[in-house]
Amino acid sequence: MAGNSIGTIFKLTTFGESHGEYIGGVLDGCPSNITIDMDIINHDLLRRNPKTFFSTARIETDQVEIISGIFDGKTLGTPIAFLIKNTAQRSEDYEILKHCFRPSHADYTYQTKYGIRDYRGGGRASARETAARVVAGSIAKQILQQHGITIFAFTSAIGKIEVEKDYKMLDLNLRDTNALYCPDSDKVQDMQTHLKEVADNDDSVGGIITCVIKGCPVGLGEPVFDKLQADLAKAMMSIPSAKGFEYGDGFEMAKMYGSQCLDIFNNDLSLQSNHSGGIQGGISNGEDIFFRVAFKPIASLRMSIPLTHEDGNSETRKIGGRHDVCQVPRAVPIVEAMAAITILDKMLIAQSYH
Amino acid sequence: MAGNSIGTIFKLTTFGESHGEYIGGVLDGCPSNITIDMDIINHDLLRRNPKTFFSTARIETDQVEIISGIFDGKTLGTPIAFLIKNTAQRSEDYEILKHCFRPSHADYTYQTKYGIRDYRGGGRASARETAARVVAGSIAKQILQQHGITIFAFTSAIGKIEVEKDYKMLDLNLRDTNALYCPDSDKVQDMQTHLKEVADNDDSVGGIITCVIKGCPVGLGEPVFDKLQADLAKAMMSIPSAKGFEYGDGFEMAKMYGSQCLDIFNNDLSLQSNHSGGIQGGISNGEDIFFRVAFKPIASLRMSIPLTHEDGNSETRKIGGRHDVCQVPRAVPIVEAMAAITILDKMLIAQSYH
Amino acid sequence: MAGNSIGTIFKLTTFGESHGEYIGGVLDGCPSNITIDMDIINHDLLRRNPKTFFSTARIETDQVEIISGIFDGKTLGTPIAFLIKNTAQRSEDYEILKHCFRPSHADYTYQTKYGIRDYRGGGRASARETAARVVAGSIAKQILQQHGITIFAFTSAIGKIEVEKDYKMLDLNLRDTNALYCPDSDKVQDMQTHLKEVADNDDSVGGIITCVIKGCPVGLGEPVFDKLQADLAKAMMSIPSAKGFEYGDGFEMAKMYGSQCLDIFNNDLSLQSNHSGGIQGGISNGEDIFFRVAFKPIASLRMSIPLTHEDGNSETRKIGGRHDVCQVPRAVPIVEAMAAITILDKMLIAQSYH
Amino acid sequence: MAGNSIGTIFKLTTFGESHGEYIGGVLDGCPSNITIDMDIINHDLLRRNPKTFFSTARIETDQVEIISGIFDGKTLGTPIAFLIKNTAQRSEDYEILKHCFRPSHADYTYQTKYGIRDYRGGGRASARETAARVVAGSIAKQILQQHGITIFAFTSAIGKIEVEKDYKMLDLNLRDTNALYCPDSDKVQDMQTHLKEVADNDDSVGGIITCVIKGCPVGLGEPVFDKLQADLAKAMMSIPSAKGFEYGDGFEMAKMYGSQCLDIFNNDLSLQSNHSGGIQGGISNGEDIFFRVAFKPIASLRMSIPLTHEDGNSETRKIGGRHDVCQVPRAVPIVEAMAAITILDKMLIAQSYH
Repeated sequence: MAGNSIGTIFKLTTFGESHGEYIGGVLDGCPSNITIDMDIINHDLLRRNPKTFFSTARIETDQVEIISGIFDGKTLGTPIAFLIKNTAQRSEDYEILKHCFRPSHADYTYQTKYGIRDYRGGGRASARETAARVVAGSIAKQILQQHGITIFAFTSAIGKIEVEKDYKMLDLNLRDTNALYCPDSDKVQDMQTHLKEVADNDDSVGGIITCVIKGCPVGLGEPVFDKLQADLAKAMMSIPSAKGFEYGDGFEMAKMYGSQCLDIFNNDLSLQSNHSGGIQGGISNGEDIFFRVAFKPIASLRMSIPLTHEDGNSETRKIGGRHDVCQVPRAVPIVEAMAAITILDKMLIAQSYH
Repeated sequence: MAGNSIGTIFKLTTFGESHGEYIGGVLDGCPSNITIDMDIINHDLLRRNPKTFFSTARIETDQVEIISGIFDGKTLGTPIAFLIKNTAQRSEDYEILKHCFRPSHADYTYQTKYGIRDYRGGGRASARETAARVVAGSIAKQILQQHGITIFAFTSAIGKIEVEKDYKMLDLNLRDTNALYCPDSDKVQDMQTHLKEVADNDDSVGGIITCVIKGCPVGLGEPVFDKLQADLAKAMMSIPSAKGFEYGDGFEMAKMYGSQCLDIFNNDLSLQSNHSGGIQGGISNGEDIFFRVAFKPIASLRMSIPLTHEDGNSETRKIGGRHDVCQVPRAVPIVEAMAAITILDKMLIAQSYH
Repeated sequence: MAGNSIGTIFKLTTFGESHGEYIGGVLDGCPSNITIDMDIINHDLLRRNPKTFFSTARIETDQVEIISGIFDGKTLGTPIAFLIKNTAQRSEDYEILKHCFRPSHADYTYQTKYGIRDYRGGGRASARETAARVVAGSIAKQILQQHGITIFAFTSAIGKIEVEKDYKMLDLNLRDTNALYCPDSDKVQDMQTHLKEVADNDDSVGGIITCVIKGCPVGLGEPVFDKLQADLAKAMMSIPSAKGFEYGDGFEMAKMYGSQCLDIFNNDLSLQSNHSGGIQGGISNGEDIFFRVAFKPIASLRMSIPLTHEDGNSETRKIGGRHDVCQVPRAVPIVEAMAAITILDKMLIAQSYH
Repeated sequence: MAGNSIGTIFKLTTFGESHGEYIGGVLDGCPSNITIDMDIINHDLLRRNPKTFFSTARIETDQVEIISGIFDGKTLGTPIAFLIKNTAQRSEDYEILKHCFRPSHADYTYQTKYGIRDYRGGGRASARETAARVVAGSIAKQILQQHGITIFAFTSAIGKIEVEKDYKMLDLNLRDTNALYCPDSDKVQDMQTHLKEVADNDDSVGGIITCVIKGCPVGLGEPVFDKLQADLAKAMMSIPSAKGFEYGDGFEMAKMYGSQCLDIFNNDLSLQSNHSGGIQGGISNGEDIFFRVAFKPIASLRMSIPLTHEDGNSETRKIGGRHDVCQVPRAVPIVEAMAAITILDKMLIAQSYH
């Protein structure tokens, strides 16, 4: 209710401020007696921290520390609590924010809602919090993998440079071969050139992540409100900077005729097409589930920006701290994590009463 | 958990199949001692049933019947249960569906998930269910109105015919003056012409609904998972046929530079622009909240379509029943209802612990 | 959250005021494709209405009306909504209560909490509401029966007349052979004599219900907060007039030594004794689960009682309406219903993630 | 759902196994901008660890470590995560339990439910977990104090030695002047003598804790299922070893006549008596709320007990580890904590929609 938990059976609660000692989470409802590979979790944390010129200089050598719920490498069925140390804090960068609000940030809304805020580095509103999601998502992905379900998110647009090919034409495993997490090698160079220009301007730029879920059985999703697409949309729109969500043919379908987008059955009850994006009536239909998430450019710019004091006066200045030029590639494992948490939760629900 | 409830404090549970005797709902957590106007509810139900050539011939003269929770015209603070009679059922139209699946419908996924389904008119998967949402939403809108919050949804695209003006250039109250719920009188004629063509082809077409929420105080939304945009996205994506959601500048922001979309404060802490769409860090910031929802064309076509038997064999034929050419205008009060339920719930949460 | 729902997967929401047109409920999360026998439900409703001199004269020939979620006699997996008509209302009996509060009733607390109340017959606070619980419980019992789980509640004390035999010495099926739902035929006559005396005094008397759950598998209950005994306690203490709950050897164990109440394993891992009452560490252990619920005498007396006006002035008078001398026997199917709802919910949870 | 959270708005999730590095918790939904005194929390932790001959030799110098949600001594409105280090673990004492089940413990039920368990010191089933509850409860008590609500739990029986005086005849603050947390100085000596005898026999003994909540406003509790007494009962019955709960006159009321237990109004709408225990219709009525919780003797005895191997064979032997003779006094701050969590949650709910 207070907003820091997601999921119903497989439920993640995260905690921590950007410049506190730790961020972390508690995962309740994880199936028991399952072997979890810590290296995979730490690798996913690393994927969230690509070391490239266009992303933050903050060196996050995140390593998860599990403090409960896993015993001799296996899940106990009890809550899995975990910590990630906040190492490279430079709180002094943020002293100026104690009484000032940055434009397009959460400073003002947090201050007004709670009457107090941890102004250092965005506090709770910092995307730093998503590291905890990646840990939980990595556990979820490992469990889903054992059920034959795999999740592939990738960068499909950086600013105006878009991957145009259908995802089926791409080898999605290639996404991990470059720092942009883009599986279309034809576009990677253009994207990098674009990012270089943006960085030279001390500006930032947005982008799009596409996510494909393969191997999902028929039957996940709980109509009429907890439809699979509804909970995926919520999970994605809870990621910092997400501005839009669409699945299947998405917004394009608003312009289409019904006769253009019927997904007709084959003899084996598979489908001839997948305009619907793997979901019918809120329930997975056995086809690939795919969706796209739009991200705005981050508002923490390297250039000077107008900073507004509580009393309403503004001054234009540079804000310290480490600012990405484009956070989209780093959001790829976050999208995967939120998808995995959602799908596993739905799988456990479907196991319960059906 | 089983998916038929939405909201946490202000919680709606709906029930009913398309061709049962009633559909209805229970609204728990409605503030007490508030006067509710039944005529407004019935008028909202009527808005969901515009009588035009392009929508279903099913005559739904829906009238809500309140059976608990309202006493002498006021809310008791106890559950408000309500019924809406299903009058114009023609179950015989659907006998063919007993063992057959329509393409791009929920027939197959419901049958596989539950092992059984009410095949008449889509059963629980029918958009008929949304009438219950409209009732709850109408109650929520009446309460929000008393807090100075108003919600305006309108048709902003029918197929390729789009409203291009910024919503601020339009008189949103005009939306109720035509059967399309479009406030841009310049576009209504084009839309109607387009719909006529689609109808002549026995086809259907999609569209987009824009929704604007005015008067929202600062502070609604619960980070990090129950952000206001996340719960709005979930609420919208739970509507039948919704395929996409975006708020503020939405997908366009993926192509923008950070410097293009900063919402800079005025001296009174209002904002000079609203690229963000009224939400920062998951919390309302006092500006207009606006978002868009994309709808696919409905898959129940008047033309012949391939119908697939459980055994995998298909035949092409016309399906009886009443089929809209475009359901988008009818979804306008549904979008308003889901927005109202979400906003009121967030308002009550904000009253609780802050 | 607003308190009218119970259960997590198998979730019941009830609605309705005592003197409205209907009371009823919605049951979400019921397993699908299960045959439900309406006669059993109506019979359980009848058990709640024994026609004897010591219980209310209100003739409740309750019949449940299912309006969704069951199709051709089978559950659809969609919400099961049901209504029970309130027939024998005599609202005029209650006009005096419009501005007065009865002692030991909910009149004052409802009025103060909600600022309004339906004063007729207790409104929402009336035990009339429990008829809806009996319907849901009857459905739950039918499903549990298919899993070999049976629930036997019975009257174990009326005032000072107590059943002293261990439940294992009794044929629990005999409880339905008398209007007191007491399986100890030696005590039934004493109880009836006692009730006659109480009735002659226009007074009321309390009692105790014992409940035994047989056939429960090992593994139900979710530590550390949703322990099986914790959720059973909550379910029981939500019944009107319940004042105490104990399981296993209960309050007696406070006086015992540890060495007196060890439940030692047999070679087959069954237990030699059952002081624990079938639960260890919050989880069912395969033995009989048993507990006792204490009920206070109802406060709606036939004799004159002090009635207090909103302004604080009191007058002593008789209150119209129909008043039980002892409601305990009528609560037997309610205890069974709440136990069944709790156990089935736990069973579905256990199926989900373990 | 998986059972490690309690509360709806003010929600505590606990984690940790007895012999892991930490136990701890996350508190979401705590009101923001409230000063919290760490010394009070640590003092409550100390109250849970009275150093006397009859309780465990394990030296728990528990100190809470807050890792998020509190900034400059004030709550941020974000999740409060906290850790308590497990210091004095002696895992070797428990090696024998790897493949054996102790009688009247959770070893067997955990193993069967989860297919795995942390056998060291009871793992998750250890009462060690309740230290996390005490931290959250201490925060809740501090907030309630600011609203004039105070909670007094005390030992009212150790085995057969019972406090007979009405709590109103006692100075409840005296409870903290002795290691038994008993405010009736006449009984403390008898209790200590009794405990000495039990200790000499290497046995254990149960007891009863009474809890009184003063200053509660009218209106807390959410009928019909989340009645105040129902949620108090659940909270109490979730404490390890709790076997019974009763409020107001409790089980005694089963034997009373209705005319004996009417709580009649005074002119100012206060009550002349409080048989009801401060709750009417599930809602607090402004009087003292009081209830009693029965605890069984702990099953970890110092004497030899039969230990059963997975294969069913038993041997009688002493189990290492530190065993209380009577855990009841140590449960006093736990009862207070669970009461405080429940009452504060209900207060926040009441603030939300009423």
